[in-house]
Amino acid sequence: MIDNYEEKSSQDQIEGRNSVIELLKSGKDINKLYVQKGEKHGSILQILNLARKNKIILKEVEKSKLDQMSQTHNHQGVIAVVPPFEYSEVEDILDLAKQRNEKPFIFILDGIEDEHNLGSIIRTAECTGVHGIIIPKRRSALVNSTTNKTSAGAVQYMKIARVNNLTDTIKELKEKDIWIYGTDMEGKSFYNQEKYDSGVAVVIGNEGSGISRLVKENCDVLIKIPMKGKISSLNASVSAGIVMYEIFNQRNN
Amino acid sequence: MIDNYEEKSSQDQIEGRNSVIELLKSGKDINKLYVQKGEKHGSILQILNLARKNKIILKEVEKSKLDQMSQTHNHQGVIAVVPPFEYSEVEDILDLAKQRNEKPFIFILDGIEDEHNLGSIIRTAECTGVHGIIIPKRRSALVNSTTNKTSAGAVQYMKIARVNNLTDTIKELKEKDIWIYGTDMEGKSFYNQEKYDSGVAVVIGNEGSGISRLVKENCDVLIKIPMKGKISSLNASVSAGIVMYEIFNQRNN
Repeated sequence: MIDNYEEKSSQDQIEGRNSVIELLKSGKDINKLYVQKGEKHGSILQILNLARKNKIILKEVEKSKLDQMSQTHNHQGVIAVVPPFEYSEVEDILDLAKQRNEKPFIFILDGIEDEHNLGSIIRTAECTGVHGIIIPKRRSALVNSTTNKTSAGAVQYMKIARVNNLTDTIKELKEKDIWIYGTDMEGKSFYNQEKYDSGVAVVIGNEGSGISRLVKENCDVLIKIPMKGKISSLNASVSAGIVMYEIFNQRNN
Repeated sequence: MIDNYEEKSSQDQIEGRNSVIELLKSGKDINKLYVQKGEKHGSILQILNLARKNKIILKEVEKSKLDQMSQTHNHQGVIAVVPPFEYSEVEDILDLAKQRNEKPFIFILDGIEDEHNLGSIIRTAECTGVHGIIIPKRRSALVNSTTNKTSAGAVQYMKIARVNNLTDTIKELKEKDIWIYGTDMEGKSFYNQEKYDSGVAVVIGNEGSGISRLVKENCDVLIKIPMKGKISSLNASVSAGIVMYEIFNQRNN
């Protein structure tokens, strides 16, 4: 295999110890694993053992080389070069719900632009059994090395679909008896007053401007998170986490 | 007033439109406000009007000057230079609870190192009526321009106490009939099975290593957040947000 690291367009990177451990455990393809020379203790040792077991091409390099390669600026001595992230189709998400014999539990991100927020949302989604996340092709953070790192590797286990038009997708979901909840400050009911006993898809809006008008008009219910104080706005990944846990708790109690 | 911007040690910076608007609304001291030349629309106009009303020293500068000054690399055309953040005492937090005629609602951060996490926790705390946050003097992220920005300006309204020894502080809180809850994967009860009807202080541990041994031993109850999936760990600010909302909902229903 030629060392074609420079040919970035056709490859992704996964950086940091936890993310790389999750990657190795997931069994997904790894083109090459770069490990900092001389690092052989703790979680790096675990990574080296997993890599040998999985017959991954391993390259020990100086810290300066990793610093230069790193996209997150926090590689912790390990970077995996992998095939580009494979997005799913909405159908794959619905199939997963069917396969688990559960009612669909989906999050739709209408213009989340911060990669840290996207990663953190994917992380909580994986912990609450969300079947998949839908993002638009335009005006959205993508899955990359930062998303991966912030998700603590949860990206490896989450189905993420990119669609051309969120409104069309929402209409298709409604035809399959999935209720669409939009999180909005102007919501009529509180998030914890709803019964999420049918299939649900929850829309989280853009960090600054919230849910776009057309998407909002197509939601079945607008829900809000109660707040006091002077700021009255939560971080998008915290909002998503609070609603995810309400649904998770209702479905698992 | 001399333009002593270079003398950084005795001043803090607050960057970004929302954070500066919250700062101006809070009525706190501002040494000088730098605004990007030519920017006069939307929220910048609101900032200019508030600044004039409050008689703040205003300086219009080129974008390049702001880029050079910026500590968050996301100044959005406005940077306020302010006196250093004033930390509170634990006593101030307890006084605030008394003043509001509420049972104490406190968060203790045992080694949160990421400034974004600290800012996001402060933001949710402000939205849920938390009376104050306690952090240790060592091994903790501090309140700075990044914390301020991530908190969307909530730092201006939150009492934050720095203490020498968290264990001593916890013992003092217990003597005042405040229950200490530690969030921990090994917790015996789920966070939403507890009744938070006395004064409460909730401990959130370090992003990687969790709550330190001595602090954990001094908690009254260890609580956990249920999870499924393969990652089984949440972002610290999401965990904090979920527990804050459980307590907020119990107290406000």
